[in-house]
Amino acid sequence: MTTVAILGGGGYTAVELIKILLRHPHVKITAMTSLGETRPVDAVHPSLTGRLDLAFEELMMQEVAERAECVFCCLPHTVSAKFVPELLQLGSKAIDLGADYRLHSVETFENWYEAKHPDPERLGKTPYGLPELFREQIPGAHLIANPGCYPTSAILPLTPLLRSRLVEPTDIIIDSKSGVSGAGRAPKLLTLYPECNESILAYSVGTHRHLPEIEQVLSVGSGQPVKAIFTPHLTPMDRGILTVTYSKPTKSSSQGELLAVLREFYRNEPFVRVVDHLPATKDVAGTNFAHLTVRTTGGRVITVSVIDNLIKGASGAAVQNFNLMFGYPETMGLI
Amino acid sequence: MTTVAILGGGGYTAVELIKILLRHPHVKITAMTSLGETRPVDAVHPSLTGRLDLAFEELMMQEVAERAECVFCCLPHTVSAKFVPELLQLGSKAIDLGADYRLHSVETFENWYEAKHPDPERLGKTPYGLPELFREQIPGAHLIANPGCYPTSAILPLTPLLRSRLVEPTDIIIDSKSGVSGAGRAPKLLTLYPECNESILAYSVGTHRHLPEIEQVLSVGSGQPVKAIFTPHLTPMDRGILTVTYSKPTKSSSQGELLAVLREFYRNEPFVRVVDHLPATKDVAGTNFAHLTVRTTGGRVITVSVIDNLIKGASGAAVQNFNLMFGYPETMGLI
Amino acid sequence: MTTVAILGGGGYTAVELIKILLRHPHVKITAMTSLGETRPVDAVHPSLTGRLDLAFEELMMQEVAERAECVFCCLPHTVSAKFVPELLQLGSKAIDLGADYRLHSVETFENWYEAKHPDPERLGKTPYGLPELFREQIPGAHLIANPGCYPTSAILPLTPLLRSRLVEPTDIIIDSKSGVSGAGRAPKLLTLYPECNESILAYSVGTHRHLPEIEQVLSVGSGQPVKAIFTPHLTPMDRGILTVTYSKPTKSSSQGELLAVLREFYRNEPFVRVVDHLPATKDVAGTNFAHLTVRTTGGRVITVSVIDNLIKGASGAAVQNFNLMFGYPETMGLI
Amino acid sequence: MTTVAILGGGGYTAVELIKILLRHPHVKITAMTSLGETRPVDAVHPSLTGRLDLAFEELMMQEVAERAECVFCCLPHTVSAKFVPELLQLGSKAIDLGADYRLHSVETFENWYEAKHPDPERLGKTPYGLPELFREQIPGAHLIANPGCYPTSAILPLTPLLRSRLVEPTDIIIDSKSGVSGAGRAPKLLTLYPECNESILAYSVGTHRHLPEIEQVLSVGSGQPVKAIFTPHLTPMDRGILTVTYSKPTKSSSQGELLAVLREFYRNEPFVRVVDHLPATKDVAGTNFAHLTVRTTGGRVITVSVIDNLIKGASGAAVQNFNLMFGYPETMGLI
Repeated sequence: MTTVAILGGGGYTAVELIKILLRHPHVKITAMTSLGETRPVDAVHPSLTGRLDLAFEELMMQEVAERAECVFCCLPHTVSAKFVPELLQLGSKAIDLGADYRLHSVETFENWYEAKHPDPERLGKTPYGLPELFREQIPGAHLIANPGCYPTSAILPLTPLLRSRLVEPTDIIIDSKSGVSGAGRAPKLLTLYPECNESILAYSVGTHRHLPEIEQVLSVGSGQPVKAIFTPHLTPMDRGILTVTYSKPTKSSSQGELLAVLREFYRNEPFVRVVDHLPATKDVAGTNFAHLTVRTTGGRVITVSVIDNLIKGASGAAVQNFNLMFGYPETMGLI
Repeated sequence: MTTVAILGGGGYTAVELIKILLRHPHVKITAMTSLGETRPVDAVHPSLTGRLDLAFEELMMQEVAERAECVFCCLPHTVSAKFVPELLQLGSKAIDLGADYRLHSVETFENWYEAKHPDPERLGKTPYGLPELFREQIPGAHLIANPGCYPTSAILPLTPLLRSRLVEPTDIIIDSKSGVSGAGRAPKLLTLYPECNESILAYSVGTHRHLPEIEQVLSVGSGQPVKAIFTPHLTPMDRGILTVTYSKPTKSSSQGELLAVLREFYRNEPFVRVVDHLPATKDVAGTNFAHLTVRTTGGRVITVSVIDNLIKGASGAAVQNFNLMFGYPETMGLI
Repeated sequence: MTTVAILGGGGYTAVELIKILLRHPHVKITAMTSLGETRPVDAVHPSLTGRLDLAFEELMMQEVAERAECVFCCLPHTVSAKFVPELLQLGSKAIDLGADYRLHSVETFENWYEAKHPDPERLGKTPYGLPELFREQIPGAHLIANPGCYPTSAILPLTPLLRSRLVEPTDIIIDSKSGVSGAGRAPKLLTLYPECNESILAYSVGTHRHLPEIEQVLSVGSGQPVKAIFTPHLTPMDRGILTVTYSKPTKSSSQGELLAVLREFYRNEPFVRVVDHLPATKDVAGTNFAHLTVRTTGGRVITVSVIDNLIKGASGAAVQNFNLMFGYPETMGLI
Repeated sequence: MTTVAILGGGGYTAVELIKILLRHPHVKITAMTSLGETRPVDAVHPSLTGRLDLAFEELMMQEVAERAECVFCCLPHTVSAKFVPELLQLGSKAIDLGADYRLHSVETFENWYEAKHPDPERLGKTPYGLPELFREQIPGAHLIANPGCYPTSAILPLTPLLRSRLVEPTDIIIDSKSGVSGAGRAPKLLTLYPECNESILAYSVGTHRHLPEIEQVLSVGSGQPVKAIFTPHLTPMDRGILTVTYSKPTKSSSQGELLAVLREFYRNEPFVRVVDHLPATKDVAGTNFAHLTVRTTGGRVITVSVIDNLIKGASGAAVQNFNLMFGYPETMGLI
C-alpha cells in the first residue's frame, strides 16, 4: 500500500485522479488540499459522495510529506515548483500535473509563462512522464513532469514518424480540438455554459503555452530540432482531445507503410491503439487509451489522434507514472 | 420611429432584445448601459459585430430619458425600482424585464427577494405584461412589469383551464425545465460548462422566486386563490423552457374537450399555438411563440408547454408589450 | 472464473455491460451475438478497440449454453422470452435486461407491450433484480428480470416512504428526465442529433411501458396497491435519469424525518447514497450509484433521485445481480 | 410579390429557407415537395406550426412551374439536375442548393460524386452564387448554383489573400469543423445523438466532395490554379462551421497588413465582417453573416472564419441570390 496526497484537489483533474486512485488496490489517499478549502472532499466533488472519507485541509509540506509517499500536484504554474523542493527534501516523491517541470529551459519557461521559475535547478533534469517515450527514466525518479494534454495528443502520433525520418521536422501543423474541462474549474465567462455550448472557437493561435512543450519533446524524442504551428480549439463537449497534424513526407510512403510504422512503434504499449478508421474522442472517453491513425493525401501526411484530456492527458498518465515509480504494474487502476 | 434605451445591456436577455429591436422597423436604440462597462456594444456581444454602432455608457437617468422614449430595464432585482421612478417622472416609459414590479404585495416581494423594495407605491398598480391575459391594460401604461420566464410557461396553459373551472385551483404541480441561459451571464460554478453539460438537476425546490409570481397571476387571471408547487430544473441546453403541470379535474372532461378550451381561449392570439402533439423546446427556439397541449391520464390533467425563455419568456414579450404601448402592430419585429 | 455470453450486443446497454465485465476479475466473455452481425466486437463498438478479442457470431442457443454459464440478454421485448427457456433448460443462467420477465401478469404484459408473451409461465416467478429490495431472492435464481431504468430511479426513493406508510400510495406523480441513450442505438428521426440536441420534450405521457412496472414493484415492495402518473422526458444528454416524485404525506413529517427514514432504509446499501443536497445526474454518471434526497413543500413530499440509466439503470444492476447469483462480492467490477 | 416553390422541403436546409422566406415581405411560398410526403408542412417541421398553411404535394414540374417564378431545389445530388432543365424550359428560375451545378467539369463531377450527370450542358455556364465574388453574374441568371457550406467558409477568407498574391496557391490546408445539421436529416448511426454528442471526429479526410469545389472556386476567384488539403470534422453542435486555413506567405506581410487586405476586399459587403478577435461559430448562429480574421505565426498565414452552415452556408445565401435575381435589396429577409 502506498500513501498519496493531492495538492490542489478542487478541480477536474483532481476528481478524475481521485476516482482512478480509489480503484487502485494499493493506494491510500491520506491528504487533500485546495486553496482555502476545508470542506469534506465530497462536498466539493458530489460525484465522490460516500466514496472517500476525507476533508480538505490546510497543510504544511512537513505534514503532507509525513502522510504521503507520493504527492500529486494539481496546482497552477509556479505553485508546484514552490512546494516540490521541500517535499522532495522531506522524502516524498512527487508527480507534477502542472507545467512547472516540463520545459528544459528556464528562459523558455519564463518567456511563455511570464513568471519567474521558483525551482530552476530541476529543469532539464526531471523526466517527462510519457512512458511511451521515456519509460526507462521513470522508475528511479523522485519527481515526474506529467505531460500536458495537447502535447500528449500530438507527440504520440508524430514521434514515430519523426524518429523514422518519414516526415519533415519543420513545417508541422497541429490543429487540436479540446473539450471544455481542459480550461479548468474556475468560473469565467469564456467557459460559461451558454458561451461555449453550441459553439466552437480557435484560441491562443500561435501563443499557446503547450507549443514550446510540444516542440521540445518532439525534438528530444526524435533527435532533431522540430518546429510546429499549434492551433487549439475550445469544443462544446466536456472531455476529449482530437488532434490532427499535417506534415510533409520526406519520401514517398504509402498510408499502409506509415500505419505499419506506428503499429510497430506502439506494438507493446498497453494504452496506445493504432487504428485503421478515423477515431472519435468518444472512443476513448473515460479511459487512458490513445487511438491514432494516419492518412496520406495531397502530398501531406495527416495523423489523427484522440485521448481523454483528463485521463491520458492528465490523471491517467499520472497514475501510469505512479505505477512505474512505485513498482506496480503499469496498468493498475487504469483498465 | 421610437427611441429606446437598454439599462443592463450586458446579459443574454439584452442581446436578444437588441437583435429583435434591430429587426423592428420603427425603433432606434440610442443608449445602452451596463455596470462599469464602456466598450462598444459589439465588443461585449460579438454576435452584434457591425450591426449596432453604439458603446455602453455610464449615464444619469436624466440623459437616458432625454435620449429614449422607452427604457428597457434588464437589471437585477431592486435596481430597476431605483431608476424607474425617475425615468417615469422625466417622461420616459419603461418596461422592466426584472422582477421588481411583478408582485402586488410589498410584503411578498420583500420575503421572497430578501430585500427592501425601493418603490413600493407602484406594486399592484403596474400592469403585468402578458398580453394574452392583460392586453387591455398595456396600451395606456407608462410602466410594464414584464413576466418571468417560468411564469409565462406555466400561466399560459393553466389559466384557461382554471378560468373555466375545469381544474382545481389548489394542488397544482408545476415541473419546469429551463436552459442554462436563464441563469444569467455572470460566471459562477453552477453554470460553468463542465458542471451543467451532460447533467440535469432540480434546484430551488419549493423556494424559487417565481412561485409567488405564478400563484398571484394564476389567482388574478382566474379569479380564485391558486396554490402550486414549483420545481425548476437546469437543463443542458442554451435556451427553452418546457413546463409540465399536473392538476386535478373538477369534473370529467375528455382530452379533446380540454384541447378545445385551450384552442378557443387562444384562437386569436398571434403567439400561442395549441397543438395536438407533445411539443419540444426546439419547436419554438428563437421565436416568440408558445406551443401548448394537454393530456388526461390517471385522474389528472397534464399540460405541456414550451417557450424560448429569452424570447417569449423575456425579450420577445418585452417587445410585444412595447408594440402595444406605442401603437405598433403587436407582432412587429417578432415574426 | 465464470463464462458469460451477451445476446444483443450491438447497443448502448451492451457496450457498458462489456466494459464492466472487462473490469470484473472473475468473468470471461465467451460469446456475443447481434442480429445479422458478424464483425469483430470492436468494429461495432470502437471504444473497445484492442480490449476484447471477440467477434459477433450467429449462434444457436445450444452453442451459447455450452460456452456460457451466464447469459445476459440485451434484446427487444418478446425476443428474450423466446431464447430464455431453452437456455435455462440447457443449464445456463440468464439475466434479462429487457422487459420480458418484469411484469407478473401476462395480461398486463400483453396489453402494454401489444404482443403475445412467448414464455408466460415464468411471469410472476422470476425475481425482479433490484437487490436493494429483493436481495434474498437473487442468489438462488436461474433467471433474473433486470429492472427498467426509469423504474429503478422511481422505486428507490419511493419504496421506503411507502413501506413506512409516510406517503399516500395513490396520487403519486413521477416526472422523469432521461438522457438519449435510453432510446437505443437504432437510428431514428426522434434521436437524431439535430432533433434532440438543444431540446427537451415529454413523451409517452400516460402511456409509457415502465408505468405498470413501477406500479407493480412499488405495490409489491410496500405491500399495498400503488397508483402513479408517469411522465418521461427526452433530455439533451447522453446518459442519466433524474426523477422527481410528488406524493401526499399521510401525516406531518419533517424533511429531516423523511431523510432519516431513507438513510435508515439504505444504510447498508453499497450503491445508494441518501444526500442532503439536490443531486445532479452528473454526480452518478458512469457509476452504479443512486443518489436520493427528499423535500417537503406545499403539502407534498418531493423526492429527487439520480442514476446513470445505462449502469444502475441497466448494465451495472445486471452485474450486481450476476455477482449475487454467482457468489461474488456484490460490488465486484462496479466500484 | 414573387411566388416560390421548394423541392425537397423535408430537411434542415429547407426549414431554415422557409423561415427566411416567411420573413421576406415580397415572397409567397406556393408549393412544397418532399419525396413521398403529403402531410402538412408543419407536421414535418413542428417549428412552423401555424406559420405556413401548406402541405407537401407530389407535383409534376409543369405544376411547379405554373405556381412558382423561382424554385429552390434542396435535393440530393443528380436529382436537381433531372428537374432543373424542365423547370427552366417552363419559364421558372431555379436556385440549386445542392451540388449539381457547382463544378465546371463533368468529369470532375462524375469522379467525385460517382454518378452520371443528368444535365452536363449547363456545367461551367451556371453562376456560382457567392455574391461576394460573382455578384455581377447573378441578376441575369436563370439558374444559380448555390455554394456548399464548407466551400463558403474557406473561400471567403482565402480569396482576397490569393487574389492579392499574398499567399502561395498550393500547399493550403483547410481544417473545418461543422455542426451535425450539415449531415442532413435522414436517420443514420453516425448522426444519432449518443454517437456524436460529447465527441468530435474528422471524416472523409482527403475524400470530401467539397474539396474540388473549393479548389475550383479559389482558382477561378484568384486567377491561378489552387491546390488544397481539406479535413472536415463533425462537431457536437447543431449548427455552425469554423474553418481554419494554413497557407504560406509569398512575402513578409504583417498581420495588420493582411487584416487590412481582407477589410478592403469586403468593405462594402453587407454580410462579411472582418474582425480583430478570434470568432466563434456562436457569433453568427442563425444569421447570414460570416466573420473572418487572420493571424501570422510560425511562418504561416492562418485564417479563421465562421458561418452558420444552414444560413450563409445554404439557405441564407440562397435568398441572397434570390434577391439579386429578382431585383430585391440583397439583404431583404436576411437581417
